[in-house]
Amino acid sequence: MTVDTTVSNKIICDLEKNRAEELEKILKPALELVINHVKDTDAGKKNIGPRFEDPKELCGILDLDHLENLFDRSIKKDANDPAGEIVAVFEKVLNNSVNTWHTGFMDKLYASTNPVGMLSDLLLSVLNTNSHVFTVSPAITVIELKVAQKYASLFGFTGPKAGGLTFNGGSWSNITSLQMARSLLFPETKLNGNFGKRFAIYTSVHAHYSIEKAAILLGLGANAVFKIPVDSRGRMCVDSLQETIEKSIMSGFTPLYVSATAGTTVFGSFDPFEEIAKVAKKYHIWFHIDGSWGGNAIFSTTRKQLLKGSELADSITSNPHKMLGVPTTCSFLLVPNNRVFTQANSLLAPYLFHNVVDENENYDLAKGTMGCGRRADAVKFYFGWLWYGTKGYTERVDHAYDIAEYFADRISGMPGFKNVSDNPPPCLQVCFYYNPTPDMKCSGSEMTKITRYIAHSLHSSGEFLIDFAPNPNDSVSGEDHGEFFRAVFNSPMITSDTVDELIRKIVEFGEQCS
Amino acid sequence: MTVDTTVSNKIICDLEKNRAEELEKILKPALELVINHVKDTDAGKKNIGPRFEDPKELCGILDLDHLENLFDRSIKKDANDPAGEIVAVFEKVLNNSVNTWHTGFMDKLYASTNPVGMLSDLLLSVLNTNSHVFTVSPAITVIELKVAQKYASLFGFTGPKAGGLTFNGGSWSNITSLQMARSLLFPETKLNGNFGKRFAIYTSVHAHYSIEKAAILLGLGANAVFKIPVDSRGRMCVDSLQETIEKSIMSGFTPLYVSATAGTTVFGSFDPFEEIAKVAKKYHIWFHIDGSWGGNAIFSTTRKQLLKGSELADSITSNPHKMLGVPTTCSFLLVPNNRVFTQANSLLAPYLFHNVVDENENYDLAKGTMGCGRRADAVKFYFGWLWYGTKGYTERVDHAYDIAEYFADRISGMPGFKNVSDNPPPCLQVCFYYNPTPDMKCSGSEMTKITRYIAHSLHSSGEFLIDFAPNPNDSVSGEDHGEFFRAVFNSPMITSDTVDELIRKIVEFGEQCS
Repeated sequence: MTVDTTVSNKIICDLEKNRAEELEKILKPALELVINHVKDTDAGKKNIGPRFEDPKELCGILDLDHLENLFDRSIKKDANDPAGEIVAVFEKVLNNSVNTWHTGFMDKLYASTNPVGMLSDLLLSVLNTNSHVFTVSPAITVIELKVAQKYASLFGFTGPKAGGLTFNGGSWSNITSLQMARSLLFPETKLNGNFGKRFAIYTSVHAHYSIEKAAILLGLGANAVFKIPVDSRGRMCVDSLQETIEKSIMSGFTPLYVSATAGTTVFGSFDPFEEIAKVAKKYHIWFHIDGSWGGNAIFSTTRKQLLKGSELADSITSNPHKMLGVPTTCSFLLVPNNRVFTQANSLLAPYLFHNVVDENENYDLAKGTMGCGRRADAVKFYFGWLWYGTKGYTERVDHAYDIAEYFADRISGMPGFKNVSDNPPPCLQVCFYYNPTPDMKCSGSEMTKITRYIAHSLHSSGEFLIDFAPNPNDSVSGEDHGEFFRAVFNSPMITSDTVDELIRKIVEFGEQCS
Repeated sequence: MTVDTTVSNKIICDLEKNRAEELEKILKPALELVINHVKDTDAGKKNIGPRFEDPKELCGILDLDHLENLFDRSIKKDANDPAGEIVAVFEKVLNNSVNTWHTGFMDKLYASTNPVGMLSDLLLSVLNTNSHVFTVSPAITVIELKVAQKYASLFGFTGPKAGGLTFNGGSWSNITSLQMARSLLFPETKLNGNFGKRFAIYTSVHAHYSIEKAAILLGLGANAVFKIPVDSRGRMCVDSLQETIEKSIMSGFTPLYVSATAGTTVFGSFDPFEEIAKVAKKYHIWFHIDGSWGGNAIFSTTRKQLLKGSELADSITSNPHKMLGVPTTCSFLLVPNNRVFTQANSLLAPYLFHNVVDENENYDLAKGTMGCGRRADAVKFYFGWLWYGTKGYTERVDHAYDIAEYFADRISGMPGFKNVSDNPPPCLQVCFYYNPTPDMKCSGSEMTKITRYIAHSLHSSGEFLIDFAPNPNDSVSGEDHGEFFRAVFNSPMITSDTVDELIRKIVEFGEQCS
């Protein structure tokens, strides 16, 4: 207890004196660093960041093995130049991270954000509030409701109660959709759990792992996930879906939920939603679309039709933080009627939720989630959408598709390259093998070695970060064709020149292992 | 496709030209606004923000009923002064939000952040990366691992593999702990789910609702939650726990998990961990401590002993975003051996996880979660801890306890005030009734009316935001004593003067309803 002797018995704490001055001293130079980071990146003076083979190396660089000593002192009180010292830590972490602002960042499924994205992050930072109840976050609550409604309308959810909520990433949106399916279709599970029922869920063999994780988390188990084969273009076979549902019923399962995918993780395929909807309707099961990756194709003039039938879904996951450059994370779960959130997920918690303004409308958004406190991610989408407009987002997504198409076209005629994804690309990635000695056939393990060598060399060159993956069809067939490249053309900074340079580099590094 | 005619067939997009310049034009004036916001708040020129009775009013102020039109244009391209226009939106949202920087913000369980908190948020914003795999977030992955290990050691997890991961708030940390309990104690559930088993979990009647939500989400159902009575100080009765476990076994349940609380939501009580640990051990069930709110009492010289026995837990939730002013959200799930994360939660996802650097160490952190992408919240705690040092956090927490104690002492002698929480306060809130006419007994509904009237008046005055709640003991006894105030003394800005003024205001508004 610090007692201020000028005022008898006054209890004060001097930790947070002069906050505005401190903000000035710390944030201003940090913002300069940020601006210069982007300026230098765009001027070609900063690359994609160092590649570390061994994480322990980094502990040394960041002095993390001596946290005990670091935390024993206080930079704020013990340093000669506290602002300078903490901003130096900021710079060190920045320089030992991957530079997502670099045009060569083509890793999995997101890109850098942009100035308006950083503005929205700054707003959430200064607000530092919690979008659980309206009282502590009035403006951001109504923004979330309205933006979700508008977003939902793009997918054909146009009723007066259409809307959505944000969750902490696509996985959590998907998990919540499964929870809602169970709670709404089998309300007794809220009290009694799964007991006495073996629920089955259906998704394609190419679906994201979060569907399987959702089944495990919800106590259905991985064996409750029936993985439906895909056609040659990576799309769920609807005949097999129907057969599998029948078979699962025969073996004692209760069909609950089908998750179709808009933009599969590896190949970027879109399942045939209209046909899947018919099957879901026939068996009275929940029809979810996991559009974490491909949902924003809804903004594209050329690919919008891949989402045909989305309006028939019971729920859709779509992530503005992936295709649209909204800061991570920003994932929406959209529904035709947003009252289902509270119906499925609410509990009485009177110490938290006091407001009943309108029986038909919930403004205490945590009620509709399985969590409590949340960062107001919808605000970031709101700012981005205001800034770029619908036409800006359309331009962004169309451009990214153009680039992916250009890349797929270019490699189709080149020796050693083999495109294994659908062409034209249904989403923004292209999966391909590159064999530097096309006359000699490679085994799967040789192919993997080549792919990894080139990918690591690209990363070490500081110019490109692209990911690689095993062929998901191999896990079905038991064959091993080795790992291929999965290049993601997401950022509006990528031009056809970037793509040409990428191809050149791949060939160059390929020569080293031929 | 934009074709640049100066270079034949070059595909470019002009959405993101001059990013550094744009950052300069947008972020700099926004940062000025932020600094002035804090400066004005500290100078008494800015209050806690407007109170809205009707959310629809806000839609008007923010023009949200016309999103269609707003999104049809692009501020970036169509505005005369785009930077000015988007920063004006920033300011409008800021001014229609709750001002958490104000000393009178005493709402539920968090406070403003601080300059170093904003610095760490800025870093995560510019990085805009994803702490799912090491390759795309080298520095922040090792920071998370090391900081979690250090944090875990405070609670007595001192083994070489002690550590933790961050999740998106205390609820998700608690949910994950239950999932880990089930996966590790009953590994077959990962494949087969709960089928054939009725798992039971135990927590006190005063526990946070996330425990019940966890049971629902995991398919156990709310009926699987056995709520253990508390003693007069709000602490779980261990004899009842033992009896209840026995009874639940007799009725066919399989005991799985007990969640004890460090700092209950309403009263702030700490359960007796050592005794609970013994019971958990006897029945081979997982012993979790939900320290979302009170966990950081570990930094307090006077209250640390309330966490005695924490080293006996299988997992502990503790949230630096609550008691320590780290930006929301920052919640850790801490464990004695961090290998349990991957053991419990990992799936094979070879397109994502490639690295096996060390069999004993996992650097692709998403493997250990039930999600995928994550914001690197641990980095914010790292910056705060470096800045304030362990001694700074101790000073902060001790000060907050001093203030809570001062408030509880002051009202104890005042007519009409009735403290209903334990004294001295085990955590940072004080729950109390205020009856402006102490000679006349109030019914429960009258009490609620008075409490709400005063709380709303405090909010409308712009000087204080404090929350209210029904007495959780009433839901057990069936009585209705009405709602009481729950004032949270979290911010280091609060002095004894603030508390004196709060009491004065309560009495003043009380007069209006006497």
